[in-house]
Amino acid sequence: MTTTSPIVKFAGRLVIVGFGSIGQGILPLLLRHIDMKPEQISVVTAEDRGKTEAEEYGIKFHRIPLTRDNFRSVLDPMVGEGDFVLNLSVDVSSLALIKFCHTRGALYLDSCIEPWAGGYTDTSLSPSLRSNYALRESVLQHKGGYANGPTAVITHGANPGLVSHFVKQALLNIAADTGLDIKTPRTRNGWADLARTLGVKAIHVAERDTQVSNVPKKRGEFVNTWSIDGFVGEGCQPAELGWGTHEKGLPPDGRRHEFGCDAAIYLMRPGAGTRVRTWTPKEGPLHGFLITHSEAISIADYLTVWDRTSVRYRPTVHYAYHPCDDAILSLHEFAGKTWAMQPEKRLMMDEIIGGIDELGVLLMGHAKGAYWFGSQLSIQQARELCPHNNATSLQVTAAALAGVIWAIENPKAGIVEPEELNHERVLEIAAPYLGKLTGSYSDWTPLHNRGVLFPEDVDTTDPWQFKNFRVV
Amino acid sequence: MTTTSPIVKFAGRLVIVGFGSIGQGILPLLLRHIDMKPEQISVVTAEDRGKTEAEEYGIKFHRIPLTRDNFRSVLDPMVGEGDFVLNLSVDVSSLALIKFCHTRGALYLDSCIEPWAGGYTDTSLSPSLRSNYALRESVLQHKGGYANGPTAVITHGANPGLVSHFVKQALLNIAADTGLDIKTPRTRNGWADLARTLGVKAIHVAERDTQVSNVPKKRGEFVNTWSIDGFVGEGCQPAELGWGTHEKGLPPDGRRHEFGCDAAIYLMRPGAGTRVRTWTPKEGPLHGFLITHSEAISIADYLTVWDRTSVRYRPTVHYAYHPCDDAILSLHEFAGKTWAMQPEKRLMMDEIIGGIDELGVLLMGHAKGAYWFGSQLSIQQARELCPHNNATSLQVTAAALAGVIWAIENPKAGIVEPEELNHERVLEIAAPYLGKLTGSYSDWTPLHNRGVLFPEDVDTTDPWQFKNFRVV
Ligand SMILES: NC(=O)c1ccc[n+]([C@@H]2O[C@H](COP(=O)([O-])OP(=O)(O)OC[C@H]3O[C@@H](n4cnc5c(N)ncnc54)[C@H](O)[C@@H]3O)[C@@H](O)[C@H]2O)c1
Ligand SMILES: NC(=O)c1ccc[n+]([C@@H]2O[C@H](COP(=O)([O-])OP(=O)(O)OC[C@H]3O[C@@H](n4cnc5c(N)ncnc54)[C@H](O)[C@@H]3O)[C@@H](O)[C@H]2O)c1
Repeated sequence: MTTTSPIVKFAGRLVIVGFGSIGQGILPLLLRHIDMKPEQISVVTAEDRGKTEAEEYGIKFHRIPLTRDNFRSVLDPMVGEGDFVLNLSVDVSSLALIKFCHTRGALYLDSCIEPWAGGYTDTSLSPSLRSNYALRESVLQHKGGYANGPTAVITHGANPGLVSHFVKQALLNIAADTGLDIKTPRTRNGWADLARTLGVKAIHVAERDTQVSNVPKKRGEFVNTWSIDGFVGEGCQPAELGWGTHEKGLPPDGRRHEFGCDAAIYLMRPGAGTRVRTWTPKEGPLHGFLITHSEAISIADYLTVWDRTSVRYRPTVHYAYHPCDDAILSLHEFAGKTWAMQPEKRLMMDEIIGGIDELGVLLMGHAKGAYWFGSQLSIQQARELCPHNNATSLQVTAAALAGVIWAIENPKAGIVEPEELNHERVLEIAAPYLGKLTGSYSDWTPLHNRGVLFPEDVDTTDPWQFKNFRVV
Repeated sequence: MTTTSPIVKFAGRLVIVGFGSIGQGILPLLLRHIDMKPEQISVVTAEDRGKTEAEEYGIKFHRIPLTRDNFRSVLDPMVGEGDFVLNLSVDVSSLALIKFCHTRGALYLDSCIEPWAGGYTDTSLSPSLRSNYALRESVLQHKGGYANGPTAVITHGANPGLVSHFVKQALLNIAADTGLDIKTPRTRNGWADLARTLGVKAIHVAERDTQVSNVPKKRGEFVNTWSIDGFVGEGCQPAELGWGTHEKGLPPDGRRHEFGCDAAIYLMRPGAGTRVRTWTPKEGPLHGFLITHSEAISIADYLTVWDRTSVRYRPTVHYAYHPCDDAILSLHEFAGKTWAMQPEKRLMMDEIIGGIDELGVLLMGHAKGAYWFGSQLSIQQARELCPHNNATSLQVTAAALAGVIWAIENPKAGIVEPEELNHERVLEIAAPYLGKLTGSYSDWTPLHNRGVLFPEDVDTTDPWQFKNFRVV
């Protein structure tokens, strides 16, 4: 598999809903790796952003913001049996489109589970119901009913998405490096058993985006390397984490949901204001934000070892995100305004002058301490590999491409999460776009250099307690 | 008073210890406003930084880092009766130089109370003894003994320094605007009574530095608009605040010192990791850092109303500092490395392309809610007003200049803090360099928009409780 060869043929129509950084970034990849004509593709989006790119590639461009009321009538003429809806929008309900595609017999993929506009901050809902946990449960409840229906891949970008495959690869690598003689598991139980056998207690999606530009962020401007609306939306949701069996006690602000799989908890605070200690190979120790993401819940759920109805093992799983420096400043300003959104937004693209996106999974608590596995992709590499992308978007679009191809290859899988896809196939497709795909061990723990200047309330008997990661 | 006229004549020798951003910035001001010759001035500093500037102005430049062991022998030939030591260094003990100047009959001024190198992070000392409170007590204990001795002005830069005069002006302005018919107080008791009468509960030194450059901060680089060592040093000290009588209870991590004036408390954490809500006129609501500063203690001490031996009134006073954006990023990185200093430092000067330093005092709890009074100085203004300065340094150097002039005019005052200087004289001298000197009322309180997305533990019965300002 290279960065030029078509991988699969697709005869239907493909509708891209939303044409922002990810939609625009994936278009050249779709045309490069899926054997189809531009005329088969159309875009439905809310703004003129991307119109010239659509024209450049010869695809149809419809500026029609989808709503609860109009989405059926808008999509009806574009989507039928064997077609594909690729939802890369904000503010359009994933569940609504999944149901629609199911009834139409169309394939579907999204890169998160999105509610209708305003859903992330709808204070008429409890924090529990504004969570990704609740959004995930709302989709998964249809899993049984839709089994063997047209494939709907949910939450399949870089993270959520690709990182679930990184976790599997990391588990295999740690097993090999610790002399565990195993075959690649082929079932959920098999993967969960492997994680437990290795003694993995905590998993971070540990990301450090170092992309910088020479245009300083202005006051009143939110700057990021991918969707500002997407980031602000998830940043205002409660911080959420898959909750491991090694944890000695709930955080003081931690709450269990009173429904669903119970694999995760949430904190009574927004992720955009919640910092955690983590580690990546190139950056070393860093503070990231505990932004809620579906993978924190789905990976924890997937790796749960059950003893009939009781949980024997589960790792703690969460995101630890260091966005690009300008986004750090944007978050700081946003918090300073008590979560009142900046009046201006800037998606960094052409003005980026350097940096990489270092995105991987950090598995901790096993015999070798901590192991990070993931992608280190520079802005230069991203630009060489594919137009209309920066390092952040290319990790997402390559993974979404792999998900689209998997869906075309497996068209009757019903609703599936990333963990249910074949990780080898996905990595094979995405790898050429991920820069350096690499693993690194570290003796870092969140207790390193703690309590030197001031005493700190840490649990020295188990470095991997969530309490030790939190920045308070 | 203009930006060209000499204000006072000085016949002695003047030694500038330390020649970084403040030393280099003040030199043109000294030569402009003090009637003296370049030959009377010499610099003693630790590096070659500033050597070309010293040569440009024709002053002597000695590269000799002062230490506990060598400082007497180095300064002995340079400092005698009627001379002046202007300490603008880091890592040189203020107390040692004050004692030295006292025995030599020389005038003295510094812009903070500095310990010998390593003092701010000496973990053989308790956090209480690493505080500015302890440093201040160590100097003030000599106040009685040195009374009527050569003047030693301590902590007289912008903040600490100028802001104590802003507080007095702000009290007078609020009194006038609320129809209180008073004369300008001439005693400490008078000022304290005025603050109490007005009902001032909390005072922030509220600063927002918006200076930006088009050179993005590199990884592993600490960038700031003034001393990086100075900022890192104070950022690692415990957060400290003058502790007001309206406060209902000590913070959970708050401690009283077991010695001295008891006007302030400290938190068992570094200021560089402690955020508070505050407000400035141009920025609006923002998060600043509660970095310890001497003025938080001295203003609170000065404004205390005593009832024999018990305290009847005192405001809560602390710094709420939003340094320039690159310093926000530097702090974030520094915290992420568990307070291991970045290998590189960059003082922003010529590469600054815009922004202002908005530095003032925010007095809260009185009849008109909140009132900010201070300086809004842009980088363009600073460059026009005086070479070798940015907006941040000029606020400091103009205030230090005023302190130097006051000391020359009042040469037998012994050890004095900013509050003991005549605020009208200091403001008169500094004002031409402060850009817009302005006051603004606001209905902002730290309860604005709180608890919307998530419930928060706030005291709604008194917005001005410290608990409400803290970001947790
Ligand atoms: N899983 C991952 O790794 C990952 C990474 C990045 C983004 N995402 C998700 O992908 C989505 C797109 O991200 P992006 O960076 O391209 O966002 P973006 O903000 O750059 O673009 C969003 C697009 O959605 C369109 N849109 C908004 N409202 C719409 C409506 N009512 N109907 C149709 N289109 C509408 C906008 O016009 C825009 O084209 C977001 O939901 C984001 O959270 C996932
Ligand atoms: N009150 C205020 O508003 C205010 C504002 C800024 C700075 N300051 C204080 O002023 C001082 C200087 O600040 P800056 O921004 O110029 O700092 P800087 O870091 O730019 O310069 C410090 C200078 O001290 C010199 N130095 C270091 N060790 C020395 C030693 N052992 N002997 C002699 N010189 C030595 C360095 O060579 C350098 O010239 C610091 O203590 C800082 O905290 C006060």
